[in-house]
Amino acid sequence: MSVTAAQGFVAAGAACGVKASGALDLAIVATADGRPVPAAATFTRNKAAAAPVQVCRAHLAHTDGHAAAVVLNSGNANAATGADGREHATRMASTTASALGCDTEHVLVCSTGLIGIPLPIDRIDKAIPDLAASAMHRSSNSGDAARAIMTTDTADKQVVIARDGFTVGGMAKGAAMLAPDMATMLAVLTTDALVDPVVLQTALAAAVAGSFNRLSVDGCTSTNDTVILLASGRAGRVDPAALADAVFDACLSLAKQMAADAEGATKVVTVTVEGARTNDEARQAARKVAESQLTKCSWYGQDPYWGRVASDLGTAGVEFDIDRLSVRYGGVEVCRGGVAVAHDEAALASHMAGRAIELTADLGLGTGVDWILTNDLTHAYVDENMGTS
Amino acid sequence: MSVTAAQGFVAAGAACGVKASGALDLAIVATADGRPVPAAATFTRNKAAAAPVQVCRAHLAHTDGHAAAVVLNSGNANAATGADGREHATRMASTTASALGCDTEHVLVCSTGLIGIPLPIDRIDKAIPDLAASAMHRSSNSGDAARAIMTTDTADKQVVIARDGFTVGGMAKGAAMLAPDMATMLAVLTTDALVDPVVLQTALAAAVAGSFNRLSVDGCTSTNDTVILLASGRAGRVDPAALADAVFDACLSLAKQMAADAEGATKVVTVTVEGARTNDEARQAARKVAESQLTKCSWYGQDPYWGRVASDLGTAGVEFDIDRLSVRYGGVEVCRGGVAVAHDEAALASHMAGRAIELTADLGLGTGVDWILTNDLTHAYVDENMGTS
Repeated sequence: MSVTAAQGFVAAGAACGVKASGALDLAIVATADGRPVPAAATFTRNKAAAAPVQVCRAHLAHTDGHAAAVVLNSGNANAATGADGREHATRMASTTASALGCDTEHVLVCSTGLIGIPLPIDRIDKAIPDLAASAMHRSSNSGDAARAIMTTDTADKQVVIARDGFTVGGMAKGAAMLAPDMATMLAVLTTDALVDPVVLQTALAAAVAGSFNRLSVDGCTSTNDTVILLASGRAGRVDPAALADAVFDACLSLAKQMAADAEGATKVVTVTVEGARTNDEARQAARKVAESQLTKCSWYGQDPYWGRVASDLGTAGVEFDIDRLSVRYGGVEVCRGGVAVAHDEAALASHMAGRAIELTADLGLGTGVDWILTNDLTHAYVDENMGTS
Repeated sequence: MSVTAAQGFVAAGAACGVKASGALDLAIVATADGRPVPAAATFTRNKAAAAPVQVCRAHLAHTDGHAAAVVLNSGNANAATGADGREHATRMASTTASALGCDTEHVLVCSTGLIGIPLPIDRIDKAIPDLAASAMHRSSNSGDAARAIMTTDTADKQVVIARDGFTVGGMAKGAAMLAPDMATMLAVLTTDALVDPVVLQTALAAAVAGSFNRLSVDGCTSTNDTVILLASGRAGRVDPAALADAVFDACLSLAKQMAADAEGATKVVTVTVEGARTNDEARQAARKVAESQLTKCSWYGQDPYWGRVASDLGTAGVEFDIDRLSVRYGGVEVCRGGVAVAHDEAALASHMAGRAIELTADLGLGTGVDWILTNDLTHAYVDENMGTS
């Protein structure tokens, strides 16, 4: 169900030969009648944004935030591909539009895979009409679509949030530490709520900030990151706050599924900073710890080496006084007032041995708090990212 | 010779039991007559600066930039050790001062090793008088001192720059990717030039900016980083520009020795960014690439995956237009105008297989240029940093 759980949407997946393995690599999510509906989106802030991101931005600006479909391929990011890449992304949209009977500008495009390699557009172009037909005829479904956007993911990521009178569904790709060889993440969400594009965009932006943007695998922002939300309106008007809440829950579920799909990682770590001067400083500090190569290695070794955390916090660019610092792993306080404190070694070792590690640093300066979800740095991460082949 | 090559300095190393292995772990560099001379220093900018860094700053402020000796220990960083740590660092200085017959404020202190563990001050305190005596009586030497500050280093780092009429010598610890379990780096330099403290500080700050600060292993700034330069004046007045040049050469040699001592790394990589809007933007962009976990893994795999470099540059926070980007590995251009270009595959593979990799990214926007020296991210790095034991 997922991306077709909300009323008024169809989806399909197919294999068109971008992936040499023959696995599913082409997906579509469309309105059931091929007509445009309000659409919101957030994109990577990378200045090397890929061709499909550039095309999406242009289309949404042109349509004032409306779309009838999203067409997605995996296996090639169509990034660092110049003018040819932009033409290829536009062709994906125009071929999809022809199949659905809508305008090219009402089709959004996503790609994920290797950077700097020309997109095999002919294979994609040829497969799109059948893909669109199978979506419209329900001969393929949202499960196929979710699988068709996977790269190094070991499992598809889908979510359905059913609320009083409306539904939000979605699918995503992105596999924690395995992902970065590819564009880090894509997500497509749908809802049947009746909502203006501006309200939809506000809800999506807040949800992304609180979910996907709290997931930091290695600090690398990809060329293709895209989150799209389409609203069919079939369920009628809803309370904007209720919609925002459901969109947030859907995004957070998908983000957590990404963190959990960590074949290259052995730990899912929540880094919480509290007692910061502001929430923004708390997040900045949590991100610094989450992205520290040294600290990530220590988690892999199940080593509660809080001295590295103190060192990370001291260079996070936020107000910091080590004499006020306390650090807890799980419920076990290992540092208070900036120095080591006696603690239950067995309880600490047990927490560090688990798959989920909870690290909390209290800066002792104010009421600011925030958290980041991340992983450990492992041999498998290095293996996954040593080469493109 | 190294740190005693310039006239007027003595040095010694000893084993006092901080390292369980029994290896050398205590060093001293002092003026031959125990009297203070102009001293310059640069320190970590980490807000969790270790106790010895705090003591050094206070002493140099108190003496207006003069010192008679530096006492250093390895095996314990005396960082995140609170008020006790500050008292221990001060005690190292006062015991050394008693042995040399100078003021406590004329002794500088460095420590390197694990963070957050109380310093075994009694062992250090007990060993200092004999250490000072062996320096004064030349029964130990600069080689012992250089070995006594090693942590995960596989070789000691020493340098002598002999110029017309004066000499600069130095020693350092810091072993590229192996170092970060420990405080990242320490260096002590000496010269016999006669120079005012302000001129000395200016020369050292410029040299550090152009050498040690161009070395980025993993983006982590340690709690203990310290570079100290003492000037005995025995060689008389020298041209300040000539001194600055010699100090720079000495620091660059030590920085390169650190990069080369990369047991955990298989590559020494020079990342050069040219064609940036400014030199500062070039350095910022080079640092972003040098600290990218993804790109570092690709070097380990000998993979010239320039798409990741483009993605790194797009998030470096500098002016960037991918359509103007070209990328070279060695002399082989792999990307021009933001897209892949045909190139000599054999020459490229040969360059990537070597120990030294030269990556150059031309942003095509201006005349700004700078470079950063770094390493690849390897299994051995993960091994070295998984645990403290």
